[in-house]
This record gives sequence, C-alpha cells and structure tokens, in this order.
Amino acid sequence: MASVSVAKLAAKPTDFEERTTVKAASPKAEDFSAIQKAMSDVFGDKIRLSTFPTDSDVDPIKLDWYNADAKSRGPVVPSKANSGMCKHNAIGAHSGPYSIYHALSIASRKLDAKHVADYTSSFPPFDFPQVAEWSEPGKIVSMDPFGHMTPWLYDDLEKKENVEVRPSMAVTKAVLSIPEIKEEVKRGNLIPDGKIVLNDEGDMACTKVAVDPVWFLPGVAERVGISEADLRRALFEDTNGMYPELITRPDIKVFCPPIGGITAYVFGDPANLSKEDKSLALRVHDECCSSDVFLSDICSCRCYLIFGLVEAAKEAQKGGNGLICYFRKEGRCLGEVTKYMVYNARKRTGDTANNYFHRTECIAGVKDARFQELMPDILHWFGIKKIDRMLSMSNMKYDAIVNSGIEIKERVEIPDYLLPADCRVEIDAKIASGYFTNGHRYTDDELKKVEGRKW
Amino acid sequence: MASVSVAKLAAKPTDFEERTTVKAASPKAEDFSAIQKAMSDVFGDKIRLSTFPTDSDVDPIKLDWYNADAKSRGPVVPSKANSGMCKHNAIGAHSGPYSIYHALSIASRKLDAKHVADYTSSFPPFDFPQVAEWSEPGKIVSMDPFGHMTPWLYDDLEKKENVEVRPSMAVTKAVLSIPEIKEEVKRGNLIPDGKIVLNDEGDMACTKVAVDPVWFLPGVAERVGISEADLRRALFEDTNGMYPELITRPDIKVFCPPIGGITAYVFGDPANLSKEDKSLALRVHDECCSSDVFLSDICSCRCYLIFGLVEAAKEAQKGGNGLICYFRKEGRCLGEVTKYMVYNARKRTGDTANNYFHRTECIAGVKDARFQELMPDILHWFGIKKIDRMLSMSNMKYDAIVNSGIEIKERVEIPDYLLPADCRVEIDAKIASGYFTNGHRYTDDELKKVEGRKW
Repeated sequence: MASVSVAKLAAKPTDFEERTTVKAASPKAEDFSAIQKAMSDVFGDKIRLSTFPTDSDVDPIKLDWYNADAKSRGPVVPSKANSGMCKHNAIGAHSGPYSIYHALSIASRKLDAKHVADYTSSFPPFDFPQVAEWSEPGKIVSMDPFGHMTPWLYDDLEKKENVEVRPSMAVTKAVLSIPEIKEEVKRGNLIPDGKIVLNDEGDMACTKVAVDPVWFLPGVAERVGISEADLRRALFEDTNGMYPELITRPDIKVFCPPIGGITAYVFGDPANLSKEDKSLALRVHDECCSSDVFLSDICSCRCYLIFGLVEAAKEAQKGGNGLICYFRKEGRCLGEVTKYMVYNARKRTGDTANNYFHRTECIAGVKDARFQELMPDILHWFGIKKIDRMLSMSNMKYDAIVNSGIEIKERVEIPDYLLPADCRVEIDAKIASGYFTNGHRYTDDELKKVEGRKW
Repeated sequence: MASVSVAKLAAKPTDFEERTTVKAASPKAEDFSAIQKAMSDVFGDKIRLSTFPTDSDVDPIKLDWYNADAKSRGPVVPSKANSGMCKHNAIGAHSGPYSIYHALSIASRKLDAKHVADYTSSFPPFDFPQVAEWSEPGKIVSMDPFGHMTPWLYDDLEKKENVEVRPSMAVTKAVLSIPEIKEEVKRGNLIPDGKIVLNDEGDMACTKVAVDPVWFLPGVAERVGISEADLRRALFEDTNGMYPELITRPDIKVFCPPIGGITAYVFGDPANLSKEDKSLALRVHDECCSSDVFLSDICSCRCYLIFGLVEAAKEAQKGGNGLICYFRKEGRCLGEVTKYMVYNARKRTGDTANNYFHRTECIAGVKDARFQELMPDILHWFGIKKIDRMLSMSNMKYDAIVNSGIEIKERVEIPDYLLPADCRVEIDAKIASGYFTNGHRYTDDELKKVEGRKW
C-alpha cells in the first residue's frame, strides 16, 4: 500500500492531521472531524500521495481508447471517490479548472461528497451519429468521443464498480440575439428565413456542443511530435508537480487536464455535418475576452467571430452547415496577464507591425502556445471530411486541419470594413508571418510603417 | 532526499525512463534525450514526486503574506525551475490553466526551458497606489497585491536566488467599441464627452487589470469557514491528487490554482477609486460565454453586463468611477457541460421558475459553486471603502461585499426592457430565492406560471 510507504517518504509519519494541522486556528473546529470523516468515507482513511501500478489493490477499469464499441471501450474515470482510488483509469479530474471549485464545495460542505448526479431529461436534443473517426487510431486524442453519452452508456457499470462516471460533453439548443447580426439583417446582408435567422431582430437558432478536455496521452504526444515519456515528464515537472500519477502510472493513458475546452455552435441541420454533398462554412475561433466580450479595438477577434457567424448562417440557409468552434485559449494560451504586458511594451516602443510578434517572444519566450495540432479533433468528431469555406486566415489553423486529413476548398479573409481602428498592426504582422491573404503581403520595410495608436 | 526515498514508495526504482518509457513508440526518438536533458538541466536529474519540509535541501524563500513592505514580504515563487525545487514558497504554477500549455511548449521544445522573460516597457500605464488593505490581515487572500510589480520589485532576488519570479497581474489601457453602447449613444441615453465616451460611435476609454489567482491558504480557509487542514485535504483529494505538496508542505501557505482569474475594467480616473468622496458604480460579473459572447437569450448575463457598462460610463462622466469586475466563473463555476445538461432538463420538464434551481441541484449536487466570499479581494485591492451604486441583484454578491466591510449604498436592478425573451424563468427564480428587487417577489404558485420557451 502506497499509503503505508508514504511514511517512508517523509521523515515522520504521514498521518494527515499531524502533517497539515497548521498554526492557523480553525474558525469552526467542530467541523474539522466532520469534514475529515466525510473525506475519509469517500477517499479512504489514509491519504495516498500517488498510486502505482505495483500497488496490491490497484485495478483500473478497462479503457480501450480506440475501441468503436462504447461498452467495450469503457468509460473515462478520473475520480478516486469510492472504489475509484483503485479503479480509476484516468489522471486528473472532470470539468477542467472547475474541479477546483468542486473541491471547495466539498471542503465547505455545500456539496455532499457522496452526491450521485441525477441526469434525468438532460440527454442531447440531437443524437450525433457515431462516425468512423471516433475510433480511428490517431484521429481523436484530446476529447472523449462518447463524453456526451456517458451517463446513459455506463450507468450500470457505475453502480457495479462503485465509481463515479461523469460526462465530459453536453449538447443543447439555443437562440442567439446578437446585436451585430441584427445590424447585418438591417443592412440586408442577411435575410431572415424563419429557420436559421428567425426574424428581423436577427435571432439565430443553433445546436451547441460543450466539450471538456480529455487527453489520450500517447496520441497527444504523437500529435505534438514527441515521445509519451517526454510529454508526461514536461506536464508534471513544468507545472511544478501537478499529478504525480503522470509519472507513477504509465499504465494509465488518459489525462483530464485542468484547462478550458471547446464550445461548437452548429447552424443548420447537424445531421448534414458529416455528409460530403452538403456544404460547410467553418470558423475556428480562439477565445479573446478583451475583444469577444468587451470589443477592445486593438485586435480583430470579435469582428472575425461575427463575420464567421454571418457566413455560417448563410451557408446553413443554402442547405449546408455553418460551424463555429470556440476554444478557451485566451491570449494564444499565454493568458491575459502576458497579453496586457505585451500591449504595454508594444505601445511604448512604437507599435509597428514588424515588432508585433517580437514583443510577445520577449516576455513569453514563444509567440503562440495554442497547439493547433489538437484542434481538428472536434471536426473529426462531427465526421467532417471537407470544408468548403474556411473563415480564417491563420496558417497554423489551416495546416493543422489539412494535415489531419480534412480538405479545405476555400479560405476566406475578413473584409476590411469589419476591422476596428487599431488592429492593422496585428493583421498585417500576421499576414507577413504567413497568414492567408488574397491582398498585399507587406515587406518588413512596409511593416515598419504600419503603426498603431499611441498612448 | 525525496528523490531517493521515492524509490521506497514504489516496488521498483523510480528511474524516470524505466517508469515512463511506455509501449507507445516515440515518433522522434532522437528528441527524447534532448528534451530529457533540457528538463534535467532545469528541474534536476531525478524526478521528485513531492517535497517535504524535512528534506535536507528544502529552503523556501521567505514569504510573509501580510507584510506591507514588498521587499520584506518576498515574491510568490511556485516555480521549481533552477533553484526553485528547494526554494519555491508556493504550490502550483503561474497563469492558472495556461500552465498546462506552458508545459506543452516546453515538451515540444517551442519554448526554451531556460527562457528568461524580458519585461522591458511592459510596466503598468497607471501606478495603482498601495493601500492599507494590501497588508491588512484577512483582507486580500486570493490574489497577490504586488502581482503587477513583481518583475521590478524582485529582479535582484530572482538573479541572486536563481529562481523564476513571474507577475500574476498586469495593467493596461484600452478603447472598447461595443455595439450596444453605440445604440445607447444613438438613443441619447449616453452622451459622448470625449474622455470616457469618446465619440458618437460609443467608443469607451478604460484602464484594465488582469489578475491570476494566488491563494493564501489560511486566509481562504477562514473565508470559507473551515480549517486550513480541511481545505488542503479537499483540494488534494477531490481533485484526485493534484499537487501533493498541499499535503506534504504545510509550511508552504500559498497556492496558485489552475483556475481562471479576474479582469477589472476601470472607467474614469483610477486614482479616484480609493477616494471616499468620489462616487462609484460597480458591476461584479461572472463569466457566461453563452451570453457574454454569443447572446443566448435564455439568460440575462450580457444584458446586465451592458447595463453595467452604461452606468459605469455615466458615473465616470460625473467625476466618479465605473468599475466592471469580470470573473472567470463559467456556469456558476460548474462549467458549460453541466450548464447545458441543466438547460435540457429544464426545457423537457416544463421550464418553470419554481424548478429553476432544482434542475441544477439534481445534476451538480449544488446550485452554485462561485464562492463569492473570495470576490471582494479585488475591491479591497483598489482601496474601495463604499459602493454608491451596486449594479447587481445577487444577494450572494451583496452579502460577500458587505460582510467584507464595504458599504453598499444603493442596489440597482436591470431594467425590464433590457431583458431577453426567454430569461424570465431565471430572473424570477433568482428573485424568489433572495435576489434584490424593488418590484414583485413571486410566490411559489406564481413561479409555476413563469414558463420559458418550449422546444
């Protein structure tokens, strides 16, 4: 038992109270034992810092990632609750970063550690058909293709094995009332049809899919072009020690990382997405809160998103589909803190397009951390074989999609009239670095002349 | 040395290659040793699953959380890079969830593990004055009050101690071009003044602050009303084993969790925020991507955000301040997957206001996981003593702010005309549950009659 050997790891016993009863007084001392008891009931009396394949009681539930039969494949079970300590077959936790708030809810006893979810009536309004890609080796490695059906596929197994099985995807329907779309209807650029664009207000009907990250580590490593061993060590060491099972459980191949996921907005009949004779317009959009929500005019993010929505609606009105895949990848996955510091450096040093990427590299050491190699998974989940109109100029997105085996027939630039005042620096720098354009690709001398607003 | 005793933890040696060289073939075998070497150069030859206060080489950099003098307080150092393995004084990693992408960048050798950030010219455009709250025990426990100045406060220490010191906050300026604000200008509800509302397009000037989470564990435990021991155990066990140092390093009091942070948008002169004789209008907004970005009409989130922005601009135009604090707390910190399943259950079972919260509790076991108790920290960081106009109906937000010692003079409801078609179910259910209103609070019988759109 690791819980015993843990004692050997430290100079003193690992009895929890002794290790972590700290000077800070407990405001509600009487809660202590109650919460400790609740935790012990669910996770066991001893705290196991990690588990090992050689632990006598370790017996992970079968998870055969590329198996086409959901039941034979088995569920993704990161939870160590109940029998999960021995039977879990994934590292990490469900719902990405929100696993931390789940833990806070348990700690504060707002959430019963033994709560069993009741998923009555929560099933998808559209039953996405299983396609070959779900089980084709290498095609889908960063999401669980059965993630939206787990409550119904594995409810018997959940009871039998006494483990927690949770969904990592969900499907629902929505009506969107976007002001810029209303404007496009007013301008006559978008015609209400009562099905896609519902009315003169520009309300749009869609089906949407939320996806939490679930990584099949050998597949992710191959995508990124490294060995699984390298990936595991970097994920563990560079996060300063997150999830030692990345090291101690080479037998567990799946990791649910604490990062944001994807939301896919489908316009038109979702059943058409996998049909080659139906046209598809696609916008792959990476989150930029500054612009997507607050419309900061230093970048073109929301403008391109709106352009994507307009074109998506038009494609759906023609009997095809429009698809917007929204990825939680703030500031090229460098986060807002880095983004803001780069803005400051740009504005103070002469915000010219030729320096655009350099400023990011000075601070972050890399100009982009989005790893578009993983992005096409959601497209393969939909069974997409070709994209008629790719609503993006990014060469990184283009290369990732084409290299994954999906054809892109046309790349569509955002029209200049949609671009905000201060974002030319970004656009022209990106075009010069390889972004797609039918227009002019600036020379370095010309880029020096493309300058943003001064402070 | 833990790295040695790790061997005792498992039945076989913990030599990394032996533990994690897995069946999956490395597509680029020649990279293996290079990446391993790069990692070893930075993190050491042996992988340490966790550290312990009793390790002979452990010697954390001093971090005296409530010390008013930045240099004496010391920097927050979660990084184990270079000398950090022994000297780190925080658990976790910088930039929240994006630490995972940082690790991917290291793994794929896009980012040099030895990169040293160059923060030239990236400093804040406005120098927020240090206020008493920054060092008042219990006032700020979920962010580092010196987080925006670390590159300049601790650059000598960084070199001397051979550790990585990174910022957890950043300040910049922006111009927002929000379509709904343009409409309000057209309607004459907002008058351009050339300073706050810049023109007839409704462009707004603001100062904004990005904040990554940094938790002082004894303080967070006290806020949530539990012992630090309970908090540490729940954070470790309920995340299925994230960061064993939560257990093994009771001497380390700070945790940088992999969750999203805050963005604060300040309208008017930021220097006025801490002045009691200047008026303040505040909107505390919790992220809802479905509405904030895509304007799904099932909730009122973006509508309330826009109302907040309008009122914020007006308050700034009167010589006071408007402040929007945007928290990354998607779907009440339950995430989008849970949110969508709740939508489905609501729509299928008769979407009446009396069932609104029940549907969430069935699935999540809790109706809300936002822990507003931590929210007021950002307000105290600004030195806010009172709020003239609170642009929120939430009793949870109100209670958290008032209990933290900040007075709220007036609570302002969102006007009905701003509410989208399908969101009455949400609003009326919230009002019945205790949300503020000057209008009618529905009885349970009446709530049964408030019904949303059917599918």
